[in-house]
Amino acid sequence: MFRPRFIHTSRAILNRNLTPLTRVKHPEFKRNPSFAQIENKDLEFFRSVLTPNNILYDTNPDDTSSSLIPYNTDWFNLYRGSSSLCLFPTSTDQVSQILKYCNRNKLAVVAQGGRTGVSGGASPVFDEIIVNTSKMNKVRHFDGVSGVAVVDAGVILESLDQYLEPKGYTVPLDLGAKGSCQIGGNVSTNAGGLRLMKFGNLHGNVLGLEVVLPDGTVLENLSTLRKDNTGYDLKQLFIGAEGTLGLITGISLLTPRRPKAVNVAMVALDSFEAVQDAFVMAKEDLSEILSAFEFWDYDSVGVVKREMMQDTNYPIEGKHAFYALLETQGSKQEHDQEKLEGYLGRLLENGVAMDGVMAQDAKQINALWSWREKIPESISKSGTAMTYDVAMEVPLLYKLVEDAKDHFGKKGLLGPGNLYSNLLGFGHVGDGNLHIMANLDGFDHDGQEAMDEFVFDWTMRHNGSITAEHGVGVSKVNYMKRAKSDVQLQLMRTLKNAIDPNGIMNPYKVIPDK
Amino acid sequence: MFRPRFIHTSRAILNRNLTPLTRVKHPEFKRNPSFAQIENKDLEFFRSVLTPNNILYDTNPDDTSSSLIPYNTDWFNLYRGSSSLCLFPTSTDQVSQILKYCNRNKLAVVAQGGRTGVSGGASPVFDEIIVNTSKMNKVRHFDGVSGVAVVDAGVILESLDQYLEPKGYTVPLDLGAKGSCQIGGNVSTNAGGLRLMKFGNLHGNVLGLEVVLPDGTVLENLSTLRKDNTGYDLKQLFIGAEGTLGLITGISLLTPRRPKAVNVAMVALDSFEAVQDAFVMAKEDLSEILSAFEFWDYDSVGVVKREMMQDTNYPIEGKHAFYALLETQGSKQEHDQEKLEGYLGRLLENGVAMDGVMAQDAKQINALWSWREKIPESISKSGTAMTYDVAMEVPLLYKLVEDAKDHFGKKGLLGPGNLYSNLLGFGHVGDGNLHIMANLDGFDHDGQEAMDEFVFDWTMRHNGSITAEHGVGVSKVNYMKRAKSDVQLQLMRTLKNAIDPNGIMNPYKVIPDK
Repeated sequence: MFRPRFIHTSRAILNRNLTPLTRVKHPEFKRNPSFAQIENKDLEFFRSVLTPNNILYDTNPDDTSSSLIPYNTDWFNLYRGSSSLCLFPTSTDQVSQILKYCNRNKLAVVAQGGRTGVSGGASPVFDEIIVNTSKMNKVRHFDGVSGVAVVDAGVILESLDQYLEPKGYTVPLDLGAKGSCQIGGNVSTNAGGLRLMKFGNLHGNVLGLEVVLPDGTVLENLSTLRKDNTGYDLKQLFIGAEGTLGLITGISLLTPRRPKAVNVAMVALDSFEAVQDAFVMAKEDLSEILSAFEFWDYDSVGVVKREMMQDTNYPIEGKHAFYALLETQGSKQEHDQEKLEGYLGRLLENGVAMDGVMAQDAKQINALWSWREKIPESISKSGTAMTYDVAMEVPLLYKLVEDAKDHFGKKGLLGPGNLYSNLLGFGHVGDGNLHIMANLDGFDHDGQEAMDEFVFDWTMRHNGSITAEHGVGVSKVNYMKRAKSDVQLQLMRTLKNAIDPNGIMNPYKVIPDK
Repeated sequence: MFRPRFIHTSRAILNRNLTPLTRVKHPEFKRNPSFAQIENKDLEFFRSVLTPNNILYDTNPDDTSSSLIPYNTDWFNLYRGSSSLCLFPTSTDQVSQILKYCNRNKLAVVAQGGRTGVSGGASPVFDEIIVNTSKMNKVRHFDGVSGVAVVDAGVILESLDQYLEPKGYTVPLDLGAKGSCQIGGNVSTNAGGLRLMKFGNLHGNVLGLEVVLPDGTVLENLSTLRKDNTGYDLKQLFIGAEGTLGLITGISLLTPRRPKAVNVAMVALDSFEAVQDAFVMAKEDLSEILSAFEFWDYDSVGVVKREMMQDTNYPIEGKHAFYALLETQGSKQEHDQEKLEGYLGRLLENGVAMDGVMAQDAKQINALWSWREKIPESISKSGTAMTYDVAMEVPLLYKLVEDAKDHFGKKGLLGPGNLYSNLLGFGHVGDGNLHIMANLDGFDHDGQEAMDEFVFDWTMRHNGSITAEHGVGVSKVNYMKRAKSDVQLQLMRTLKNAIDPNGIMNPYKVIPDK
């Protein structure tokens, strides 16, 4: 079962309107003067390592026609750097040579995968050399007994899933960007996605990593064993480190068996309390087969209908405050269907849900999923898009959206023609993970900051996480001093300094300066 | 459903026969002269922090009557140190004061929990001060919606399970020692256990940790969020670090819902190929409800019957090369039973299994489990016990036992009255994890080394892990240079030096000297 590819809509916006440079919008970022600038001798070295078609060099990277623009700009078109050099290594050895050279010569580097990150973590801030893993895209090995796949970092998530399908296996994570995102990037950001509640996170599913350390040393740690307690579990360091401790080149991944039976239902609910009740009942009735429990609000319906699905009827009639999508994955269709029908019956009988539909075939399953999956893409089509992913106690999850609407509505900043033309919420109830998205008028910097401040401050005041799955990147680094304790930040700095003493890997991001 | 408590049989042996000191058996371990020795001023300090009943001090710890003997000796009675001081802090603040003092005064420390580890990792090698967490044993908080429990490190695993039972939750790991082992120790060794194939490992289930760093700083990182990507995932460092990077004082743990339905079956198989076939078929037919797939050999049956279950008939008649125990956990008894019966029918029809029984009630479930769970205890009752836990490709799993029998059998060292009176294999097929156990005549050091060398060398030659779940401790540190690359070891040393520059935490273990 495949989702439609996530189309690069932000690229379309890009051509119309170049986003301002990150360093211009954020003058608080200062280029670290200890980093060297690219000289001819450096280019000569890189040309001795890579073939010409794997080097993109442009002395005018800020020019609207520069071929480097896509590599300098992030997915949601909010962050843009000025790198004049993007390298496309085709082997781990080439990555090793590149980093060894950069470390010796104090050239800063940013690792980049499928460019679907939404925190600006994989785009340069200044002139960091971009090392893009797109051309390292082979499945190295797959073992059909254990289900362990060993892959290059640049393998696209959906491509791996297609490779695994005839073998009876599937990938242990799924996200809207699966058609473009690369597994190395997924691991570097510890991507969560739609089925984390079933498969758990990548700290559990990644069995081993091959990482090029900042000095060019290759850490070959590609274990295919499910259990291995020989010393520190080094791979964990790099999962979610956003490329600041090394560059991941290979991944050993535990893949689960493809489910024999998949069922999907959508229900309509009139309050967020009802969403929570429906979730608790789903854990009771569906337990081991529940693979996803997603929710979204009525405004999310509106934007998807307007931007992408004008000619399609919504599966459930009428107007409801919330919708939830449930998916089950199991090994016996009759059993799963019986459980799901029993659950839906209980929801309707008890008045928890107002209405509901259950997909009857794969086409209907895709149709139901598309109303959830098209939300971010639709917002992106509506204009400059801001996205947040916060985690907190489930009961508080939607209150943040209500309070934001209240706060900005009172100021007259909400709705068509205003600073924020759209503001909506959706997310993964099972993980306590909410996505708030908003459309911003143009690239209004103050408008962006005001929404950041409201969402992050609210979340921290309610003991939540300001990034559940998207990562810190450049977008949240200024909030890290409020989000984490001095002890936590100091330990992060200790690790960073121990592993990357020259600080060349993805500078300015994740950990704030003292 | 509770397992019988794991009785401290090794303590009984202890009284008869004191195991030689580790430093005597292993003269290659040298006390690090940079560590201070305990003086009166140190005792005065500890007495100012702890009440007298929480300090055990004995200047003759090697005397057979010393109250420190149990704290100086490991579970399987193979390793013994000479610490004269065991501290029992009752709060994180006390631990902080202790470590701060020890770090300043270069006093070495070993963290200790329920003393059920089997690699000598929680016993001193020389005179390290023992900091035992037994008296930090409170459940701090439990949230019945999310299932997140926040507990002190010294909470016993089974006690937490009993606490969770009326709330409808259970612990996400289960092991034979659950009646004695502490959760802090489970996390420090990254314990695996019987249901890892269902719940995944602790890198996924631990949501946050409170850790006292070697200099006494408290790292408060007790997140209760399922998803949190704000910077490096610091807790991962300490999971499986065996107390060498800090002392874990608190754990935030994701607990799964207690299953509504549990079914257990035992089958008899005539070859290890048949065991593998049965496992692959179980993954196909039982998939999401399969919670354990354990196997053992005929010699394991013999030792359990002889040592602990003389008066009980084996559930399956006749003599078979292998037995497997399958457990399902699900939300609907009829469905699960139908799936399991269908599976067992297919096994017998296809001639994969020779015979099989299915438990009809909780009592029978416990009875079937006991034949698996009593194996280590029975071996321990038989005499000095050696245990190995290795991981490798499933097809090779039992070949190690066969080759070991062949190797030592040819030398006439196997069987009653010989150097190794018992040699048997059992383990977790689903995780590729084999336990080999043997009884050794007395404390024969050469006999121990010969078995170590055979098992570890064989495993490394077959790309396996020399410790799947038990950890390195003192027992495998001399093999780490062969098991890991220089790059891996150097990165471990870099981390150790960055976090514990004085090296006071659990010295001599896990990472070998250069």
